[in-house]
Amino acid sequence: MAKKTKFIIGIDVGGTNTKIGLIKGHTIKSKLVLKTKQYFRKKDLLGAIIKETQNLLKKNGLSKNDILGIGIGLPGAIDYKRGIVHYLPNIPGWKDVYLARLMQQRCGIPTYIDNDVNLMALAELHYGHGKGKTNIVCITLGTGVGGGLILEGRLYRGTDFAAGELGHIPVAIEGPSCSCGGKGCLESFIANTRILKRAKQIFGPDITLEKLSSLANRGNSKAIKIWQEVGNFLGAALAGVVNLLNPQVIIIGGGVAGSGEILFNQVKKTIKERAMLIPKKEVRIKKAKVEEPGIIGAGILVRGSLKLK
Amino acid sequence: MAKKTKFIIGIDVGGTNTKIGLIKGHTIKSKLVLKTKQYFRKKDLLGAIIKETQNLLKKNGLSKNDILGIGIGLPGAIDYKRGIVHYLPNIPGWKDVYLARLMQQRCGIPTYIDNDVNLMALAELHYGHGKGKTNIVCITLGTGVGGGLILEGRLYRGTDFAAGELGHIPVAIEGPSCSCGGKGCLESFIANTRILKRAKQIFGPDITLEKLSSLANRGNSKAIKIWQEVGNFLGAALAGVVNLLNPQVIIIGGGVAGSGEILFNQVKKTIKERAMLIPKKEVRIKKAKVEEPGIIGAGILVRGSLKLK
Repeated sequence: MAKKTKFIIGIDVGGTNTKIGLIKGHTIKSKLVLKTKQYFRKKDLLGAIIKETQNLLKKNGLSKNDILGIGIGLPGAIDYKRGIVHYLPNIPGWKDVYLARLMQQRCGIPTYIDNDVNLMALAELHYGHGKGKTNIVCITLGTGVGGGLILEGRLYRGTDFAAGELGHIPVAIEGPSCSCGGKGCLESFIANTRILKRAKQIFGPDITLEKLSSLANRGNSKAIKIWQEVGNFLGAALAGVVNLLNPQVIIIGGGVAGSGEILFNQVKKTIKERAMLIPKKEVRIKKAKVEEPGIIGAGILVRGSLKLK
Repeated sequence: MAKKTKFIIGIDVGGTNTKIGLIKGHTIKSKLVLKTKQYFRKKDLLGAIIKETQNLLKKNGLSKNDILGIGIGLPGAIDYKRGIVHYLPNIPGWKDVYLARLMQQRCGIPTYIDNDVNLMALAELHYGHGKGKTNIVCITLGTGVGGGLILEGRLYRGTDFAAGELGHIPVAIEGPSCSCGGKGCLESFIANTRILKRAKQIFGPDITLEKLSSLANRGNSKAIKIWQEVGNFLGAALAGVVNLLNPQVIIIGGGVAGSGEILFNQVKKTIKERAMLIPKKEVRIKKAKVEEPGIIGAGILVRGSLKLK
């Protein structure tokens, strides 16, 4: 009986918010949100995560013995097997941090970590548009462009757990320099900052992505054109992924994915125009379905790592 | 005892040559070569393959009962599971041919078919640069640019067995139209015909790819530049694949791969410049090692399909 009532802690570390959730079964029972940017140093953010995790337990009348494990998703290069955060492009100060070991020592609870889009892919596989599918490509649009791959029904992490970097597929061989060191990568065209830069050239300094979306949805042709350009870059890169991996579904998440149908319709149109006959017939393009995919995916990671269902 | 002495027929259908090999264990005991272009119609090529397969058996004093199975690799879109050739871009007249069933009926031997670069990937996994590796990207350069993926130690075929089309990753979003219907695909820059077209603009109509290679190897700077351009396109596309799949090794085969170190060095340089830190540290770039990979791979396909070792 005791086993059945056990909980999992799922933590989603993001550039803006860090969310800590208490999971029972497949649902989030309780949640805390930290403002990531309030904690300048790695040590401070880590301290806050540990403190708030313990607060969440206390608040719910639980002790560490009630927790099966902690799962943490982070936006960067993560060694899942050894529990190391190699680096986080949008959160400074994290370099080769043995986070799983550290959390385990400090909280006394087994801890597993992974890339946040990998966890989103697990969440969509179990509870979202990936349910019942075996070959799934997940992509998130935001400050960075991240990716996660489910191949043959399992999370594909690659040789050094570095696979899935959809944002760093070159779409223009002589394109602008990318933060990754490459050139003309998808991210260098459609990261939030790049879209905003383009929007400011047309609408002035006060434009935001939310305003740009609402302008487009109200029929502003210049705003529509910007989102169509974004969709065309994204669609071209995804056409290559469709030809390479022949997935059943591509699931798009992250902030920019909320910009509405204009972006999605363009992505679908470009894939239809560019991808090969057989793989494009199969593939569906979907907006991410699972809420709090980072927390939910972290729960699946813990259950999978502990070989529980 | 009887089982141990059984043979496999491996057939490699190519745009120029079609090779039929008699395999025992891991080696080719006997081989026949047909000129594919001599057979204008699908029916004629198919008839010749069947006739020469039977000739090969007769020549070696064997009957169909000595043969475990026939494996066939073809350059195009193949449904491995149902044994259908959907189409072959460089061999006209093949559309949705139930080849496995047809061969089985005509020869009385179980037959399995697959894409030829998938078979090359199996050959390299078992006997080449992929030995002991789990994540391998294979690419062939020639009339078309083909690909095959070994992921987590197994051939990754994708949802409709259409995965691995490395030639149809866009590298220039506004590039030239590609034979696949896409735009700016890798193949549209580095297919044999495109390299030759570029070479003819500089060296006149009599240049061949062999001559272009030998000019480059003797230090002709214009010829070197052409191969470097090819290597740069190939390297840029492969940098994206390195970021997406984080493979241990990329194995390059096909005609153009014989053009020498200039191409390979440029590919390595471009990947080093463009790919991300962690996955580029791991990946090795190798020239294909297995001779007659189509025949050898077809043998592995048959053994795998019959669940033999």
